[in-house]
Amino acid sequence: MDDLLQPLIDGQRRALSRAITLVESTRPDHRIRATALIAALPDRQALRIGLSGTPGVGKSTFIEAFGTMLTEQGLRVAVLAVDPSSARSGGSILGDKTRMEMLSRNPMAFIRPTPSSAQLGGVARRTRETIRLCEAAGYDVVLIETVGVGQSETLVAEMCDLFTLLLAPAGGDELQGVKRGIMEMADLILVNKADGDLLATARRTVADYAGALRLLRKRPQDPGDFPKALPVSAVTGDGLDKAWAEMQALIAWRRDSGHFDSTRAAQARHWFHAELRAGLLAQLDQPHVRAEMARLGDAVAAGQMTPGGAASQMLDRLGRTSALAE
Amino acid sequence: MDDLLQPLIDGQRRALSRAITLVESTRPDHRIRATALIAALPDRQALRIGLSGTPGVGKSTFIEAFGTMLTEQGLRVAVLAVDPSSARSGGSILGDKTRMEMLSRNPMAFIRPTPSSAQLGGVARRTRETIRLCEAAGYDVVLIETVGVGQSETLVAEMCDLFTLLLAPAGGDELQGVKRGIMEMADLILVNKADGDLLATARRTVADYAGALRLLRKRPQDPGDFPKALPVSAVTGDGLDKAWAEMQALIAWRRDSGHFDSTRAAQARHWFHAELRAGLLAQLDQPHVRAEMARLGDAVAAGQMTPGGAASQMLDRLGRTSALAE
Repeated sequence: MDDLLQPLIDGQRRALSRAITLVESTRPDHRIRATALIAALPDRQALRIGLSGTPGVGKSTFIEAFGTMLTEQGLRVAVLAVDPSSARSGGSILGDKTRMEMLSRNPMAFIRPTPSSAQLGGVARRTRETIRLCEAAGYDVVLIETVGVGQSETLVAEMCDLFTLLLAPAGGDELQGVKRGIMEMADLILVNKADGDLLATARRTVADYAGALRLLRKRPQDPGDFPKALPVSAVTGDGLDKAWAEMQALIAWRRDSGHFDSTRAAQARHWFHAELRAGLLAQLDQPHVRAEMARLGDAVAAGQMTPGGAASQMLDRLGRTSALAE
Repeated sequence: MDDLLQPLIDGQRRALSRAITLVESTRPDHRIRATALIAALPDRQALRIGLSGTPGVGKSTFIEAFGTMLTEQGLRVAVLAVDPSSARSGGSILGDKTRMEMLSRNPMAFIRPTPSSAQLGGVARRTRETIRLCEAAGYDVVLIETVGVGQSETLVAEMCDLFTLLLAPAGGDELQGVKRGIMEMADLILVNKADGDLLATARRTVADYAGALRLLRKRPQDPGDFPKALPVSAVTGDGLDKAWAEMQALIAWRRDSGHFDSTRAAQARHWFHAELRAGLLAQLDQPHVRAEMARLGDAVAAGQMTPGGAASQMLDRLGRTSALAE
């Protein structure tokens, strides 16, 4: 049994941190150990909440306030970030822990900063495995944060039970250029900064989005009144309890209807296929294979071999004589 | 030696058609024969011209007129279509040959209709191999047509010596919603329908695009005055000779500067890598592998195995014990 397993299950933060560092590593021996560790984890479940929002909507402040509220209800909260690019914007330059100062000192909360650089595929595996580690460590809620751009939303939606989009109040009837695809993934749209001077604007923005959401196709895993738009204020705390109540109601509905379990099963199957493809392609990253690929690539570039012929020869070397044909 | 090789090299259309049907097939024995045939082809070169344009800009009429002009200059012209979706729009419902009736009856021209359905990856291989077949069969110019949407432009640009964008005259200064990425790939923008009532609009559109092109980043493989925008009329034939002269000038410049050869070498290397990845992943399409994946997938969905553990086990079965780790 791995030395990390028992202290991890006991909820020791240091063991959790070290286990996450392990799953983040690309070293072959670390990968083997990580796979075995993940396979040995007990089957505990947390609620996995995805949270997307472009920089400037107050995501850190929201997570700080929302996470603190959950811990006050006795829930243990883990916060992870998914961001395939190393260049993060705005306040996050100071680091995730600095962005959420109060939550980071909260013994009921665990914040894992984004690794400095990673590719989308690597981020997916790391995050999925980190979620499992947090669940095994006894966290009740795992918040997975992503910036509202690119493919990372789809990736997060594929590993969450619930997907939340955080927006800022917008003047007029324009919908802040939120991509339709991201809107369609959202179970809940929260319009932040619904306080002070922005309160009226925030309420109007909620109405605009509620209208837009009604035009979007209903999904079978939604009860009749979802997806919903709600106003919240991370600063005053207004609406946070209501948002949490809505999340719980949606999850309860999905559990009763069987969609919760069937979605998790489909996600696990999807992850299995992704790991399998990654494992096959990982052969090409081995140093001796790279060297041979470079040699054959030169021959192809020089016109001495056809691309298909070189691929065929390389696959032979990899012990896959018939792979190209089949 | 393959029976098709000599008649193909002799330029027999029937042999070319049969060879293309062979490379389009996914049957394992056909794939082996196709790979061997491609490897045995003589090293003849045609000018590979990519042509993109949204439905309605008169692409078929342009290809008919432009292709006929080239054959009148003694050049043999092949026309291929790249379209990953089976649903083609507009006149093409009637079939590619019907769209280009004159050219399809021209003994100097060869038109290959789009296969009824195919995936993007499969289209890429088919088209690359078909280009090589057309070159071996002695065609001087291969026109690769694509509809101006999605990823197919990038795919075509990766297999062409020259990328042309065909546009319709547009009123005002709006740039027809042409994606910046596609604009950046274009070596030549041709504004079609520069005749009759639309002549003035077409000229203004050319000026608009010429301005836009100046704002785009210059590429090292471009001489100073490229990319260019020109007016053409597929109906009157005006500007077609000028367009061809510009294409020849650009290619001559690229040949002299070495960019022509280096681009082809890079394209071949890219194709090699794509074939290699496809060959590795093709293992997963074998019936007995699919059955085993389904069985493991069920165990993963039921929570009896972790996704990583199941992937690891599957990779072991495929003889890749260390692949996940490496």
